[in-house]
Amino acid sequence: MIDTREKHDTNPKPRWEDVVAQKKKQQAEALAIKFEPLRPDIVGSITALNSPGEISSKILSGQLTSHEIARAFIQSAREAHEQTNCLTEILFEEALNEAKKLDKYFSEHGKLVGPFHGVPITLKDQFDVKGYDSTIGYVGRSFKPVEEDAVVVKLLRSFGAIVIAKSNLPQSIMWCETENPLWGLTTNPSDKDYTPGGSTGGEGVLLALGASMLGWGTDIGGSIRIPSHMMGLYGLKPSSARLPYRGVPVSTDGQEHVPSSIGPLARNLNMIHAVTEALISAEPWKLDARCAALPWREETFQEVQSRPLTIGVLYDDEVVRPHPPIARVLRTVIEALKDAGHEIIEWDASLHSECVAVMDQYYSADGGKDIRDAVSEGGEPFIPHVERLINSGAPISVHGYWALNRSKWELQQKYMEKWENLRSPKTGRVADVVILPPMPHTAVPHTACRWVGYTKVWNFLDYPALVLPAGTVTRDDIDEPWEFAPRNPQDEWTGKLWQDQRQKMADLRLPVGVQLICRKLEEEKLLGVGKVVDEVIRESRREP
Amino acid sequence: MIDTREKHDTNPKPRWEDVVAQKKKQQAEALAIKFEPLRPDIVGSITALNSPGEISSKILSGQLTSHEIARAFIQSAREAHEQTNCLTEILFEEALNEAKKLDKYFSEHGKLVGPFHGVPITLKDQFDVKGYDSTIGYVGRSFKPVEEDAVVVKLLRSFGAIVIAKSNLPQSIMWCETENPLWGLTTNPSDKDYTPGGSTGGEGVLLALGASMLGWGTDIGGSIRIPSHMMGLYGLKPSSARLPYRGVPVSTDGQEHVPSSIGPLARNLNMIHAVTEALISAEPWKLDARCAALPWREETFQEVQSRPLTIGVLYDDEVVRPHPPIARVLRTVIEALKDAGHEIIEWDASLHSECVAVMDQYYSADGGKDIRDAVSEGGEPFIPHVERLINSGAPISVHGYWALNRSKWELQQKYMEKWENLRSPKTGRVADVVILPPMPHTAVPHTACRWVGYTKVWNFLDYPALVLPAGTVTRDDIDEPWEFAPRNPQDEWTGKLWQDQRQKMADLRLPVGVQLICRKLEEEKLLGVGKVVDEVIRESRREP
Repeated sequence: MIDTREKHDTNPKPRWEDVVAQKKKQQAEALAIKFEPLRPDIVGSITALNSPGEISSKILSGQLTSHEIARAFIQSAREAHEQTNCLTEILFEEALNEAKKLDKYFSEHGKLVGPFHGVPITLKDQFDVKGYDSTIGYVGRSFKPVEEDAVVVKLLRSFGAIVIAKSNLPQSIMWCETENPLWGLTTNPSDKDYTPGGSTGGEGVLLALGASMLGWGTDIGGSIRIPSHMMGLYGLKPSSARLPYRGVPVSTDGQEHVPSSIGPLARNLNMIHAVTEALISAEPWKLDARCAALPWREETFQEVQSRPLTIGVLYDDEVVRPHPPIARVLRTVIEALKDAGHEIIEWDASLHSECVAVMDQYYSADGGKDIRDAVSEGGEPFIPHVERLINSGAPISVHGYWALNRSKWELQQKYMEKWENLRSPKTGRVADVVILPPMPHTAVPHTACRWVGYTKVWNFLDYPALVLPAGTVTRDDIDEPWEFAPRNPQDEWTGKLWQDQRQKMADLRLPVGVQLICRKLEEEKLLGVGKVVDEVIRESRREP
Repeated sequence: MIDTREKHDTNPKPRWEDVVAQKKKQQAEALAIKFEPLRPDIVGSITALNSPGEISSKILSGQLTSHEIARAFIQSAREAHEQTNCLTEILFEEALNEAKKLDKYFSEHGKLVGPFHGVPITLKDQFDVKGYDSTIGYVGRSFKPVEEDAVVVKLLRSFGAIVIAKSNLPQSIMWCETENPLWGLTTNPSDKDYTPGGSTGGEGVLLALGASMLGWGTDIGGSIRIPSHMMGLYGLKPSSARLPYRGVPVSTDGQEHVPSSIGPLARNLNMIHAVTEALISAEPWKLDARCAALPWREETFQEVQSRPLTIGVLYDDEVVRPHPPIARVLRTVIEALKDAGHEIIEWDASLHSECVAVMDQYYSADGGKDIRDAVSEGGEPFIPHVERLINSGAPISVHGYWALNRSKWELQQKYMEKWENLRSPKTGRVADVVILPPMPHTAVPHTACRWVGYTKVWNFLDYPALVLPAGTVTRDDIDEPWEFAPRNPQDEWTGKLWQDQRQKMADLRLPVGVQLICRKLEEEKLLGVGKVVDEVIRESRREP
């Protein structure tokens, strides 16, 4: 085992390629552990289980053991990794041992350890898990196992969840695809030339392939929502102070200007709701000083499910126009919501460009020093996106940084006022929720993403956001007219992307999501509204 | 009228002394407005009114009009200013007009406009009031009337409160006394050679002299709590996100590292409680994007008043030891709390010095540029404390600033863990509240303050803090032994201060407060506990 930190003081640094080779060798060994495999049809029936409640009842009734469930997901994870290169740290052996302990506990006590007893989970390789590296995609962080679980990992384990693996992410994390020189490129299971999105791309793949029941990611510009959208999943980015970030190392750690959030990804909304409520009910503010002391408000969650909603809709952010399937799916959802008795009001894109412009000035606030230092620690090359990012500007002064913060506060204030002022002409009510596309496009070929303005605005505002799967690209989308004068280079690039890729996107029936937004710290409201909208979508998708 | 901003472009800047002279002339005219004065005994009976409820019932019963109440407080404010130089912007004429409008409203509608109908309030010269300067003590901000009330001013006016004046503060605000070259020095009414504390010193004087019913200040290191303590008042520094800061300009605006809070000062706790609850119930998060969407939690406020409390006590922060009257008053309060059935646990000063050390590195993060720019805009000299502050270090990089933030988060985390771990050996309960001195001394001669570690730690942690008056210096304190080896220069300075000033401090019977602390966003708990402690203190002070 190579400990680069130890060697750093006395010996020359190891070549980064050697570190990668060692890390891959270690990974291959952990992937290859032997256990009695389950029949594929049994694996399929287990990985199709959808909620912690289903798992619990199967265990309580004696139909399944935790060990069987773990094996099923581990078998799936192994296959998912072969297909897409989605895994980083492998915890299979530990997971099987944990499962045995849970089974022992159940047989001895006749009850479960908690609401997530036996639920297999995976984590973006950014969450600290005791005894494993948190590489966050940097070679220089290899062979430095952390000594303590992240707060959220501790809590999930206390609920009975089993961590089976960690998953891939991009170098620096600040990119909406999934590649780094340490772990390589993660591909979309639908087509290896396509990205699954990022930065929580590994989780996206694992969930889509039934290799995890619950994934955990981080989101500072769309990193939970983009892979959720591209892989047909549910993903929640809460307000940054709602769930415990402690024990989750990040790039540019210490910056407070645009807060990153941790959040869950899953194949259904019940799982997202169950885990969010369970974590908040565990009073994370007594474990992480940066969490808001705000209990779960069940009455808010229920109230929005009991009445017609006022829903703001934004079809186009006026920077990059959405591809035809993105626009069509949103229109279909809106029609179904109207039919279900909800009121739709037009939202507008005012302030979005201004928010993005201020955000973009922050990225180079330290002149890229943090990321450059982290990469040079290991010696690996930069991926092109990161190289562009860190060379995008000279460091600014603290005085200039404060001026940027003032611009940020002004925009946050103006957006709050916009929300209060954009009322229903009929009822005078403000929007309960705003609905918009998560991205202007579906999954795309690697390195083709150019615009995350639909997601990142909500990080800047620190508003909670939820992505729901809502449809797929269809052959009819190809025939939509697609001629326009591009507004800017990103619009031109993205427009051409549809022309070049539409046939393939339709052939692959790529997933399309919608994004729901509530105001800061309104997670209960967002999840309640999400439940209403999800039911309307699922109902409408069942019909011809 | 001199508009320095206009002249800046075309003419040489006016001499700062000329701006000051103009400003003082304007002030003198506004102070001297004519109205029919009330008899001194009537003024006394009105300014002794203690709560918005008392004011309301006097008006509702026809015993007083808003105009009479306003006149009484204006007469007191004029006298207070003559004695101490506490006022800055004068709103007497506007206030009398407002009072007439309220009286008209009441006579026409037979009801009050809100719960603060006719309550005269004052504001530190930092809160924006439409049509008046917010100088924050800078010459260069003179003759630049603002166009909009601060959010809190709007809300208070909507409750029926009347702004009668704004009050003095120190140059740069970052100092716990009250002097600037524009408005001069504010003195302690007990002795003109003594400070009333700061930075909200003008408010402290006004309230102590019955010239305001409710004062508003800001606190980034003790600026509400220190004058409250020195002037025998109640003062609340909430968590920064609890009350709306919008429309309150500050020095080093844009910094997010140590948040400043706005908060009320008053002569009784009912007023503090009433205004805090009213403001939170007005949902300020819909008016100021930086407010937390956290409703008033009445059940928490009540619950802590219904049971024995667990109270941590810290007598000495191990940096600067408290003068004998400070220590004696705290001991007396603790004995009374024990007698009342509450459990006392020993708190300790661990982490306090570390917090202060990290805070101090922030002060020069911009190399003093913000304050230097603001002062050179007007051309006035620096007061010595500010000169020391802005020359205390070179600017740091944004990268270094992020490293400081990481140190801050670690300390916030450790303090949260300390609070969870420091439990009652008897009941296993964590502290409901921590009680400690607000300062190591009472009011002192001008420029003699050297240590605000007892207050500023709670800004760094963003915990709410409440100061209650608890006693006065007595002749017996003089005889306390006071020999020790100083721990450091501040301890030595402060120790000598007692030796030199104790006779005078006892002769003046200077007030002594205690400081109560709860955890972040626990304002309801703090006010509930405060009510219990205040009753115990007032009961014990009535006895011999």
